[in-house]
Amino acid sequence: MSQKKPRPYAADTKAANTGLDIAVSRRRFLVGGAAAAGSALAAAGVSAKVDLELLPPNVPPWSQALGVNVDQRPYGAPSKYESGVVRRSVEWLTATRESSVNFTPLHELDGIITPSGLCFERHHAGAPDIPPQAHRLMINGLVAQPLIFSMADIMRFPPQSRIYFLECAANGGMEWRGAQLSGCQYTHGMVHCVQYTGVPLKTVLNEAGLANKAKWILAEGADSAAMTRSIPIDKALDDCFIAYSMNGERLRPEQGYPLRLLVPGWEGNMWVKWLRRIEVGDQPWYHREETSKYTDLLADGRAREFTWVMDTKSVITDPSPQKPLLSRGFQVLKGLAWSGRGAIKGVDVSLDGGMNWKPARLDSPVLTKALTRFYFEWNWHGENVLLQSRAWDEFGYVQPRYADLHAARGVNSIYHNNGIQTWEIDGAGEVHNVRLN
Amino acid sequence: MSQKKPRPYAADTKAANTGLDIAVSRRRFLVGGAAAAGSALAAAGVSAKVDLELLPPNVPPWSQALGVNVDQRPYGAPSKYESGVVRRSVEWLTATRESSVNFTPLHELDGIITPSGLCFERHHAGAPDIPPQAHRLMINGLVAQPLIFSMADIMRFPPQSRIYFLECAANGGMEWRGAQLSGCQYTHGMVHCVQYTGVPLKTVLNEAGLANKAKWILAEGADSAAMTRSIPIDKALDDCFIAYSMNGERLRPEQGYPLRLLVPGWEGNMWVKWLRRIEVGDQPWYHREETSKYTDLLADGRAREFTWVMDTKSVITDPSPQKPLLSRGFQVLKGLAWSGRGAIKGVDVSLDGGMNWKPARLDSPVLTKALTRFYFEWNWHGENVLLQSRAWDEFGYVQPRYADLHAARGVNSIYHNNGIQTWEIDGAGEVHNVRLN
Repeated sequence: MSQKKPRPYAADTKAANTGLDIAVSRRRFLVGGAAAAGSALAAAGVSAKVDLELLPPNVPPWSQALGVNVDQRPYGAPSKYESGVVRRSVEWLTATRESSVNFTPLHELDGIITPSGLCFERHHAGAPDIPPQAHRLMINGLVAQPLIFSMADIMRFPPQSRIYFLECAANGGMEWRGAQLSGCQYTHGMVHCVQYTGVPLKTVLNEAGLANKAKWILAEGADSAAMTRSIPIDKALDDCFIAYSMNGERLRPEQGYPLRLLVPGWEGNMWVKWLRRIEVGDQPWYHREETSKYTDLLADGRAREFTWVMDTKSVITDPSPQKPLLSRGFQVLKGLAWSGRGAIKGVDVSLDGGMNWKPARLDSPVLTKALTRFYFEWNWHGENVLLQSRAWDEFGYVQPRYADLHAARGVNSIYHNNGIQTWEIDGAGEVHNVRLN
Repeated sequence: MSQKKPRPYAADTKAANTGLDIAVSRRRFLVGGAAAAGSALAAAGVSAKVDLELLPPNVPPWSQALGVNVDQRPYGAPSKYESGVVRRSVEWLTATRESSVNFTPLHELDGIITPSGLCFERHHAGAPDIPPQAHRLMINGLVAQPLIFSMADIMRFPPQSRIYFLECAANGGMEWRGAQLSGCQYTHGMVHCVQYTGVPLKTVLNEAGLANKAKWILAEGADSAAMTRSIPIDKALDDCFIAYSMNGERLRPEQGYPLRLLVPGWEGNMWVKWLRRIEVGDQPWYHREETSKYTDLLADGRAREFTWVMDTKSVITDPSPQKPLLSRGFQVLKGLAWSGRGAIKGVDVSLDGGMNWKPARLDSPVLTKALTRFYFEWNWHGENVLLQSRAWDEFGYVQPRYADLHAARGVNSIYHNNGIQTWEIDGAGEVHNVRLN
């Protein structure tokens, strides 16, 4: 066996070998200007001291004592060292905290599955925790036989599981006029992606028996906002389903426990939580949440109504304002892309504000109407960078620039902002939200 | 709109319409003998009283009050009504609780993603919670340059995400001689399936530079058991990877935080948690966990060594001893299948102890070396049933009967039990673990 002494994997060998400065190292073959550690690098603890006794070949204390036993965590939780990875909200955004929103920490996440405990919340009257044995789903209106289902009834129908993203129509809404919040958690964090299990909506609709003139359904929630949305019958019979599980276990209370309507690819507000009633009708109901809200007011005073589909979009999650660059040299950029129409076909990345584009690497699986993870490998030598990503879907729809969106729709609305985001990296590695075009 | 009054979706209309007995209803078109509610049905609360005021068209109290606001749960948790869905252990199984196991509640889960908080735990010295900034991975032995990586170093390599099952070699070990524990949580619950993110092992091995005569690696954990396993270099360079995230967020402490080795399709004991060292050598090390443990002692005193691959297996999770049948008539059976060699190709279900078989329905996605969800729709009229499932993979390997396994291997070993499980359903709907063949 080799007798060579292991050395820390670091460009700055002198510093690393002292064991006193534990550098976030550059890849050896990319070593260049080893100078200039700016404020982001310092803030990120690059110079943090680590006790020599903890490092190999020494045996650290946690390797010398028994750990936590199997009775202590019937239901697990993240490490105490990950306590900063949480949903966060913006105080000034809404008048009350019950009718408000918190945001998924996209910058801290990997893969395409969002942990259930980190899926953003948007409530209009807070989240109830409904006893499932007392919950009912009523189907009425233009049906042969109005019915009331218990949860046990619903769980006896043939189930299916699907992985879908869910995005709030107002995701990025604060950016529409250029708020430039500091972090993709706030600019893009009203999206998540989980594996749901439930029953096709058409199964329960057919059980009640749709009348010939049935053209719309109205979905109603059991929260005290009684959230209601009109949905055309074609979509209801296509890929909508009513879910009781997410990521393998029952829905979380704040995600609609015990029953939620899924409307794949369409705005999250239509995915009615705590689903208690479906009325079948021959025209839309024009309720509050599809008239005064969730329509897009244009510059000329007209409004785009029923803007259901979430258009193709992407965001670079790392680096981003909450994830500064910690060193120069080789970098792996991470991001997410999604399309409410179907599967993502490709993502391009620009380092110069959209003048030149290079293809990103898509990780598997690439699923229809689900988040898609992309990566881009590059080198940074301390120069200013204007980072952008641009996704397109299987139907050829390409994510637009803000300038294009504003030209088409004005700046009155806060919904359906799928514009290309720009992050500016400064010489210290800090990342800023800037509006370029 | 229809003026018909909604009616409860129940076969026993008289009972349902009183609103006093909330039956777990049969599908209307399958109504037959409405008699005979046995002990399982009663125990499951079929006759539980629900307050009339909670039911439609009345508006329940949770629809009349504000719910929990978005500041209250930075990191979410399941509903209080799901408090029974937890990992559980068996007191008598091990001498200490630190070197022990708890089990995934498979009977309560849907889809193929196991929630991180419910993934079974198996430790040999308890689970440490290691500060990630002090954790190191050392690579030594037959390499050009021994190296020590920080977690920041590892996170700078190009990542990938994959969905894989992980099964303990001893899963079902207590059943090998016929313990017949009551519930698939205990008989099959040492398996889970998550989306991991990390770096291919070959990337870091190549960074250190493999010597020509490198044939094996030794993976070592930082727990106080210093778990070590030998792995052939071909597997190490094939699909092994070192993961820092599971289901989108960092690994849980009990699953190896901050770094775990993944050995897709191979026994879970090799997926070394809290990975601190990889030694490269030209022969296996024959450490404790691959000699006195994790080998299969045969009837003639010889042992099968290095039985790495987890053979094709399946289990019916509902109905099962913890999930009795609650009513007669139409039933949806749920189960899981997996193969350490690749993708599941099919699953058959028998109602008569293996005399006749019918194909189950596989749900998407069907991924290589991942759990696959299957369903089977059938009718139950109160007769005794001997339920079995039998999976096969893309290479034609068919899950064997216990009798076949015992004939080939005797009964000394507790490892690699992938025999066909039999559940007996009695006239009351209760489900029993029985050994048939």
